[in-house]
Amino acid sequence: MSVRQGDSILVTGGAGFMGSHVVDAILAEPAWPSARVTVLDDLSGGVLSNVPQDERVDFVRGGVEDVELVGRLFAERRFRYVYHLAAYAAEGLSHFIRRFNYANNLLGSVNLINAAVNHGCECFVFTSSIAVYGHGRSPLSEDDPPTPADPYGIAKLAVEWDLAAARQTHGLPYVIFRPHNVYGPRQNLADKYRNVVGIFMNRLLNGLPMPIFGDGTQTRAFTYIGDIAAEIARSPLNTAAINGTFNLGSDHPETVNRLAELVAEAMGLPVATVHLPPRQEVHVAYCDHSRARRVFPAINQTPLTQGLAGMAAWAKRTPIPPPQSFEPIEIEAGLPPSWRA
Amino acid sequence: MSVRQGDSILVTGGAGFMGSHVVDAILAEPAWPSARVTVLDDLSGGVLSNVPQDERVDFVRGGVEDVELVGRLFAERRFRYVYHLAAYAAEGLSHFIRRFNYANNLLGSVNLINAAVNHGCECFVFTSSIAVYGHGRSPLSEDDPPTPADPYGIAKLAVEWDLAAARQTHGLPYVIFRPHNVYGPRQNLADKYRNVVGIFMNRLLNGLPMPIFGDGTQTRAFTYIGDIAAEIARSPLNTAAINGTFNLGSDHPETVNRLAELVAEAMGLPVATVHLPPRQEVHVAYCDHSRARRVFPAINQTPLTQGLAGMAAWAKRTPIPPPQSFEPIEIEAGLPPSWRA
Repeated sequence: MSVRQGDSILVTGGAGFMGSHVVDAILAEPAWPSARVTVLDDLSGGVLSNVPQDERVDFVRGGVEDVELVGRLFAERRFRYVYHLAAYAAEGLSHFIRRFNYANNLLGSVNLINAAVNHGCECFVFTSSIAVYGHGRSPLSEDDPPTPADPYGIAKLAVEWDLAAARQTHGLPYVIFRPHNVYGPRQNLADKYRNVVGIFMNRLLNGLPMPIFGDGTQTRAFTYIGDIAAEIARSPLNTAAINGTFNLGSDHPETVNRLAELVAEAMGLPVATVHLPPRQEVHVAYCDHSRARRVFPAINQTPLTQGLAGMAAWAKRTPIPPPQSFEPIEIEAGLPPSWRA
Repeated sequence: MSVRQGDSILVTGGAGFMGSHVVDAILAEPAWPSARVTVLDDLSGGVLSNVPQDERVDFVRGGVEDVELVGRLFAERRFRYVYHLAAYAAEGLSHFIRRFNYANNLLGSVNLINAAVNHGCECFVFTSSIAVYGHGRSPLSEDDPPTPADPYGIAKLAVEWDLAAARQTHGLPYVIFRPHNVYGPRQNLADKYRNVVGIFMNRLLNGLPMPIFGDGTQTRAFTYIGDIAAEIARSPLNTAAINGTFNLGSDHPETVNRLAELVAEAMGLPVATVHLPPRQEVHVAYCDHSRARRVFPAINQTPLTQGLAGMAAWAKRTPIPPPQSFEPIEIEAGLPPSWRA
């Protein structure tokens, strides 16, 4: 599929961790020398320094839940492709901020879907989550009926289904990714609610032990951002990807205990951990990636030690803002003590 | 299970069709002589005259999406049971008003779930919909993985799942009903987007032909409100119902063509129909009700002719407001011409 010169592209959450890597990958894409990228980000989790200083990139500060702003940007800039990565992605916290979760992650997405339909967008790329599988049995497969178990996963799946309905009724093409446990440079290290690798590095940098919920034998397959950003960026050009849903990430599960050792090693610091009461979470989670391998054969699998080394080098030279508490919590009962303000 | 005197009960949408019948059934429930019922309704679809003039009933005009109002009512009245029937239930239109649909039907519900958790509500009764089955194969069973195909069904299923998560994490008990094709006295006859029986009666009363999408061979099992309202009202007292999900309604499918004949007969008017272009809808839809029959053995199955006679008698003595168009439509493309303002 050829690409027109001067294509207008929207990346929501483009100042955030994954979004900014996708922006970089779009700019680096040889098929796309004249892409014009609008980054829409409210800087609630992202930072301006993640947005490349490049004349092809325009930064707009704002949230996807601002329906007037979204409508105006689409009308003015007639985006050919939309990459929707903006989300408040604190899965565990979503039980306690259900309203905020749905307003931000579902209604915000629906604003974009409405605008994409109304302005003839040619592909809507959406980063969903393996949270849609809930307590499903691993290996998690895209063919399994999803059974999300928390408001975050429910909102992500609702967006997936809304995209399927919008394609059916209005012909909007999409690509849906379900990335998992992504880590790497630019991850928000100040977020105490999510991203275990970032939390571990933050704590070590502050001379504190790494917190582990439960006994730490739960396993996750940690995915290096560099392995997936280019595939996400290129997906609207990949005809086999259109209207597909893809698990995306590493094939190599690791226990959280082992992760703690590897993070300490990468940071050149002694292993120090503290075990917290277990929380409701899936014990073993890993994905079947056969569909993604078929459609995106170039996907890399960076070894965890190598990826952590890259992230640690970045983290050590990065000023880390103090952890911020989410406000307001909507349900206080049952909130883990370490999450209280 | 015994019921305390003076129990405080909330019925959202209690001025609407199904909600007002549930209010009547609560007031008629022998186990519940001192129930205090708060009806919360924004009168967008309901009418005040549906709310019984009874000292045990207090009407509050407002919407479930008003988070401050919802919080205040729960704090003041400490509802023991919540019946959440408020919804904008125009399934076919939901493709064109996705944002409104999710704001009203999902965020509004989540406001109630948050408040029910925070104030220790003992049972949250929710009327979902068979829209959660989407294009699923009939007989539709609660054991089938749901696959909603329109924003309305997606929002209903998201609420079902959010309730399951709230039970898991916060211990909120629930009963979920998936009623289907409910008709009867007090149905909103002015609504041109939904409820085929009401639309048919409205058109006949106005001397117009009954509109049928497609060839009219699509089948539905039409359910008389009188058969299900008491079971919904009593469900928090039915221990076998708690934390269950139940299809609810008639076992006898009928074609839309045959329905038109029966409606005309009930109204004592000649059959006059007009066929419109088909719209995206399930051709054959009927439900497996074995679970509901087991847990609610008293459920009745009023024959369609009898139910239509009751509704027709009511419709003929009811002043019918002119049909109102929904505003604003968010996506104009593909809207059926008969739905345009």
